Amino acid sequence: MTITVFGYPTSPFSRMVYYVLKELGLSYEIAQPNNHEEIKTPEYLATKHPFGKIPYLDDDGFHIYETRAITRYLVNKYQGTKNSTVLIPSDVQKAALVEQFISVEISYYTQPLYKMLRPLTLKRLHGIEPDLKIVNEGREELEKTLDVYEKLLEGKDYLTGEFSLADLLHVPLTFYAFNAGEGDLWNKRPNVSRWWKNITERESWKTISTENKST
Amino acid sequence: MTITVFGYPTSPFSRMVYYVLKELGLSYEIAQPNNHEEIKTPEYLATKHPFGKIPYLDDDGFHIYETRAITRYLVNKYQGTKNSTVLIPSDVQKAALVEQFISVEISYYTQPLYKMLRPLTLKRLHGIEPDLKIVNEGREELEKTLDVYEKLLEGKDYLTGEFSLADLLHVPLTFYAFNAGEGDLWNKRPNVSRWWKNITERESWKTISTENKST
Repeated sequence: MTITVFGYPTSPFSRMVYYVLKELGLSYEIAQPNNHEEIKTPEYLATKHPFGKIPYLDDDGFHIYETRAITRYLVNKYQGTKNSTVLIPSDVQKAALVEQFISVEISYYTQPLYKMLRPLTLKRLHGIEPDLKIVNEGREELEKTLDVYEKLLEGKDYLTGEFSLADLLHVPLTFYAFNAGEGDLWNKRPNVSRWWKNITERESWKTISTENKST
Repeated sequence: MTITVFGYPTSPFSRMVYYVLKELGLSYEIAQPNNHEEIKTPEYLATKHPFGKIPYLDDDGFHIYETRAITRYLVNKYQGTKNSTVLIPSDVQKAALVEQFISVEISYYTQPLYKMLRPLTLKRLHGIEPDLKIVNEGREELEKTLDVYEKLLEGKDYLTGEFSLADLLHVPLTFYAFNAGEGDLWNKRPNVSRWWKNITERESWKTISTENKST
């Protein structure tokens, strides 16, 4: 069995996939584009990802793209085979609440976070001056979302009560926000801050966030 | 067993839930807000949907929000109990491809479609003049997505080959686009047009799209 993740090793979306793989106790190989143009070529669009994105996953010839779909696939296929970590519970109602919070992550958390971070990342990587109006709009939307999270996390260690795929998917992009000097957004909210500590102190994330630093 | 869907009966997101319920052969009750302010009250935010949205679902006391999470829950709990309709296959790889296309729907299809439609809807409902720059941006992004769909649907009746939850989730919002006079975007692409016919000619959708017209 060979699982290959194609993407940039430091990309937050690739790291969502690595984090799941490590939590499930699976080994994997990393492949990456030769350059930024490769993922927009007709060959890549026709055979790898029709919308020209990374990551995609190859599992012994089975090909799948879209980060969250990849992570659900890995859980459905491999959860319980290598260790006892549970990312999506088998109980139908508990699983539904994990899905509810994955949808919350996509719609209300990652969208404004990405809006805030992307211009800052382009500045760091390519020297492009950020549009601070966009950055600030993203930050304001994110503040509102984190105010809701602060209430949702009252008396809870994790979004559904137990660590799950929903928590995990928040980690890689938020990690970049801390690196970009935006950590106060999380730190100033006691419940959010406690949750952030809980979901990043896991060994699998510590390994991912410290390896591949030079790539 | 009582399943209640709380939302506006003509809302495309409520209709995604009704469509799944009808496909699975389940009966349900519809409840709706008394007015537009209700879903922003502290009581609603604290007990119904913390981000102030509709729909939410109540299944004999089990409460869940976020449209796609609701639909997955209904499939996981009830698929196969009332009829033989399959919206998410039990095969892990086939299920993964359904999830892949649900992610495509959220990221590349519904986002630009909503961007195009929302100003047109606000004009129709409240007389607010639409920002045509936004409408046109949405339309241009959607055209690119539909070009990709045209290739993805070559030789296929449905996105994964067989009718699934991924196809179904595209229907209600696209239906509004046709009503807004934008149907040519779909009609001018032969594969997309054939797919649209396939996913809307089902009895369950015909029922939903013709009832509640006056609400």
